[in-house]
Amino acid sequence: MEIGFLGLGIMGKAMSMNLLKHGFKVTVWNRTLSKCDELVEHGASVCETPALVIKKCKYTIAMLSDPSAALSVVFDKDGVLEQICEGKGYIDMSTVDAETSLKINEAITGKGGRFVEGPVSGSKKPAEDGQLILLAAGDKALFEESIPAFDVLGKKSFYLGQVGNGAKMKLIVNMIMGSMMNAFSEGLVLADKSGLSSDTLLDILDLGAMTNPMFKGKGPSMNKSNYPPAFPLKHQQKDMRLALALGDENAVSMPVAAAANEAFKKARSMGLGDLDFSAVIEAVKFSKE
Amino acid sequence: MEIGFLGLGIMGKAMSMNLLKHGFKVTVWNRTLSKCDELVEHGASVCETPALVIKKCKYTIAMLSDPSAALSVVFDKDGVLEQICEGKGYIDMSTVDAETSLKINEAITGKGGRFVEGPVSGSKKPAEDGQLILLAAGDKALFEESIPAFDVLGKKSFYLGQVGNGAKMKLIVNMIMGSMMNAFSEGLVLADKSGLSSDTLLDILDLGAMTNPMFKGKGPSMNKSNYPPAFPLKHQQKDMRLALALGDENAVSMPVAAAANEAFKKARSMGLGDLDFSAVIEAVKFSKE
Amino acid sequence: MEIGFLGLGIMGKAMSMNLLKHGFKVTVWNRTLSKCDELVEHGASVCETPALVIKKCKYTIAMLSDPSAALSVVFDKDGVLEQICEGKGYIDMSTVDAETSLKINEAITGKGGRFVEGPVSGSKKPAEDGQLILLAAGDKALFEESIPAFDVLGKKSFYLGQVGNGAKMKLIVNMIMGSMMNAFSEGLVLADKSGLSSDTLLDILDLGAMTNPMFKGKGPSMNKSNYPPAFPLKHQQKDMRLALALGDENAVSMPVAAAANEAFKKARSMGLGDLDFSAVIEAVKFSKE
Amino acid sequence: MEIGFLGLGIMGKAMSMNLLKHGFKVTVWNRTLSKCDELVEHGASVCETPALVIKKCKYTIAMLSDPSAALSVVFDKDGVLEQICEGKGYIDMSTVDAETSLKINEAITGKGGRFVEGPVSGSKKPAEDGQLILLAAGDKALFEESIPAFDVLGKKSFYLGQVGNGAKMKLIVNMIMGSMMNAFSEGLVLADKSGLSSDTLLDILDLGAMTNPMFKGKGPSMNKSNYPPAFPLKHQQKDMRLALALGDENAVSMPVAAAANEAFKKARSMGLGDLDFSAVIEAVKFSKE
Repeated sequence: MEIGFLGLGIMGKAMSMNLLKHGFKVTVWNRTLSKCDELVEHGASVCETPALVIKKCKYTIAMLSDPSAALSVVFDKDGVLEQICEGKGYIDMSTVDAETSLKINEAITGKGGRFVEGPVSGSKKPAEDGQLILLAAGDKALFEESIPAFDVLGKKSFYLGQVGNGAKMKLIVNMIMGSMMNAFSEGLVLADKSGLSSDTLLDILDLGAMTNPMFKGKGPSMNKSNYPPAFPLKHQQKDMRLALALGDENAVSMPVAAAANEAFKKARSMGLGDLDFSAVIEAVKFSKE
Repeated sequence: MEIGFLGLGIMGKAMSMNLLKHGFKVTVWNRTLSKCDELVEHGASVCETPALVIKKCKYTIAMLSDPSAALSVVFDKDGVLEQICEGKGYIDMSTVDAETSLKINEAITGKGGRFVEGPVSGSKKPAEDGQLILLAAGDKALFEESIPAFDVLGKKSFYLGQVGNGAKMKLIVNMIMGSMMNAFSEGLVLADKSGLSSDTLLDILDLGAMTNPMFKGKGPSMNKSNYPPAFPLKHQQKDMRLALALGDENAVSMPVAAAANEAFKKARSMGLGDLDFSAVIEAVKFSKE
Repeated sequence: MEIGFLGLGIMGKAMSMNLLKHGFKVTVWNRTLSKCDELVEHGASVCETPALVIKKCKYTIAMLSDPSAALSVVFDKDGVLEQICEGKGYIDMSTVDAETSLKINEAITGKGGRFVEGPVSGSKKPAEDGQLILLAAGDKALFEESIPAFDVLGKKSFYLGQVGNGAKMKLIVNMIMGSMMNAFSEGLVLADKSGLSSDTLLDILDLGAMTNPMFKGKGPSMNKSNYPPAFPLKHQQKDMRLALALGDENAVSMPVAAAANEAFKKARSMGLGDLDFSAVIEAVKFSKE
Repeated sequence: MEIGFLGLGIMGKAMSMNLLKHGFKVTVWNRTLSKCDELVEHGASVCETPALVIKKCKYTIAMLSDPSAALSVVFDKDGVLEQICEGKGYIDMSTVDAETSLKINEAITGKGGRFVEGPVSGSKKPAEDGQLILLAAGDKALFEESIPAFDVLGKKSFYLGQVGNGAKMKLIVNMIMGSMMNAFSEGLVLADKSGLSSDTLLDILDLGAMTNPMFKGKGPSMNKSNYPPAFPLKHQQKDMRLALALGDENAVSMPVAAAANEAFKKARSMGLGDLDFSAVIEAVKFSKE
């Protein structure tokens, strides 16, 4: 199976490498073309524009940094739209909002192409290990034909229906994550200010029904006020905001997420936006006594 | 090692049975004495009053239903206080507030006895399986002497310092639990109202960094609006209230826990107090459209 | 002074009538032209399109129902843009978002015209009585030249600086209003459920430092569960959302407004969106016991 | 009419002075007896203990600093209880919780005496001007007999039913006040951070339906970060907490008050507890950017 791959950032590089390792023929493109070299050493072909990748491959996956990059690769000169046509499939795994996905979908299908939106859950390590979770939506046949590739990239792929649902589902997952992080932060600070050990609290949580990889992974560094950015706080807050907006559209009142969002905003106002989202604990800790 | 055991409710019965099975000599007492019969069949002795248990045993564990029962067993006629004295240890594993623990501690130590407060995390199943978590505080020597028994009852015992700290730690754990349950509920409802499958959301969460036994255990029944009471909502709300009061004492602002507490109160006002605390999702779901 | 007036809804009709009564020469236009008749009886002239009004008058005020009407009157065929030019001033008093104002401003000034954004605070009665409050922003000279007209329409005009500031100030005022309404609602319900009279609470509030026309005006009907729509709840909630978005832009954490917004959303989900915003008390009242 | 008066702090002194000025015969007592001198100059008699005041007067009013002082004056040696008896009335205007009122009520009526709980709304200035608001509850006949005195002390007296209702009503009024203060603070900060003038916002609010003496009185100094303590923030926060507890008892969910309470707690943690409660705006303002 031949696959085009657009975008070789941290995620895209790991993902295209996995495809190569599992015997897929991969043709790559990246805005800075030199980033393709390492992939070529492992057997990848290169094209000089997104349009040429599309022309060459029946299936193309994109993994771009943000909505504007995702739009640019499709709509700009030498972009996807110039070559997309009946029979070809385009799978965008970038994390974008539902609106961006819908726009790309409309353009692709308007040219007869097929489109799947497929944001992933998981960052660098799961990408390298082929342990991502794919939240796919859009053209069902394309989704099914792509499963061999998806199975290499992730441990599980979900088909969620119409385009936009992938983005929405990801927001909801991240909203739960943001509220949980606040619940956790409040507990750690309360333990500490009540004269208990917040490290012992971690041990106790770890043995009970709430034990989860996030608490285990981030708790010890939070107790040391250390927040190396795996998922920047400002992005977490943006996702909370968008999830609340989704709730607004559908008249779902979510007071806990709203309170968590305001805590992330306070953390942003304290200059913590570029740190890991676990730095929200600093907004809880803050006092002058 | 001979152990007295006061209180043979669901928890106390399972716990004393475990002690018997592991070769401890156990002397039991229960307000309704007939409940002792099953234990006697397995080798337990019986005393007719708490005082007689204390008189007979160097170490006595109590597992009572609430603060008033815990106080009554100590202070009433034929109670613990009548026989407690130097050399004897009393370990109260009932879930009570810090104030109740402190009162019992003062009385016991006033008579020369030793006291450990030891609320447990875990309900019926972990009690039967000897998989409880013990949050102990108070007399350190008594704690250490009791470890052989604690090791039979639970998978881990924590020594948390002065009396009151066990109760406080348990409140903090339960506060995190209550906020997490609200985060989870809001996410499930948002998925549903946004046209996504809340069952799929469970599957996605289960594969990611937030996966935890509570979401896995309660999610499927929450999606079916089914809330068999493992931990009643009114007790969860009471613990949220007490944890917020602890935050008040120590000037810790906890807006997410406060929002979660108000959601539990709304659920109580909807008549859901006796259902499982996961029924708080009904307060999120409620709408008339 | 000759003034053009676009839009003769409840507000626009009252306002243009006031201008006539105070000796201004007024030329009106309304999408449904027959609505101009009453004004003509009082001495107004009529034009058949917004463009013709602009052509005729040096100063034109618009009072339209919403952003899309405000945009349409400017950009559509026979619209304001066709005749606006150097020397002419356009004052839009419609309640629109900052983005809409900025778009109109850019178009008007691009043609050499001058623009003032001037949303008003106050509804039908103050409009009739010339007691509105004008939150103006944009071209300062135009603002100053317009003061004779503003003094007829309102009791006070504020000049707030650059275009967009009028819309922002109005959102902030409405945000405070929405949070106050929730504070009031919670108090009324708490009184009632605590066995106190919520009517007596109104009397007590009325005598103290918090007495204000909104509590006095809406309290009695709220206690009778009566919510005739002066300002629809769904519009209040939209303004809360936009004010929170403004806070998001500027990293201002506003937990009380966020909680109030979620209460309005709950009220919307209960089908109360078209009632007065004071109907948010129904979300507080709701219980099943 | 002869009135006993216990407690000559800022409030009590102003109130007893008013009674003297209006022709009442007043017998005073204060813990520090020298504080009685000024009253004596204006015609008051003095007794050396609360018991002696009760013995001498048919009606006695108390105005003490807090619940413990209120209890001590009744229950300690030479206290009210020693002389209270059938035919005598005791009116406690101290601000205490419902529990304290109920305890005093039980003791007084147990001796055959009559009791009215009468916390007041208003501070030094209204006390001096006889413009307090009395929230009275308890013995109805005593309330009615006391109206001549109440009319001198305040502009309005409310009879609220059973003992405890006065304290509850006051908490509710203060809860609304605390939430309003947060709504106001968030608006002022949002204006400022959005590039608008928070002084202009005050002017706009002052002209609209939300205008109230509290905003007018405190707004200008809040904009100057000046918080001279009229009502200390820590007391406001305590009243929020107690009002939320009242909501808890009655299953009233109050998310806005809960969010406001957490903001006051954050302000306390910033060391602002002894400043005026309007200093909560500092918790909203706080940022590091």
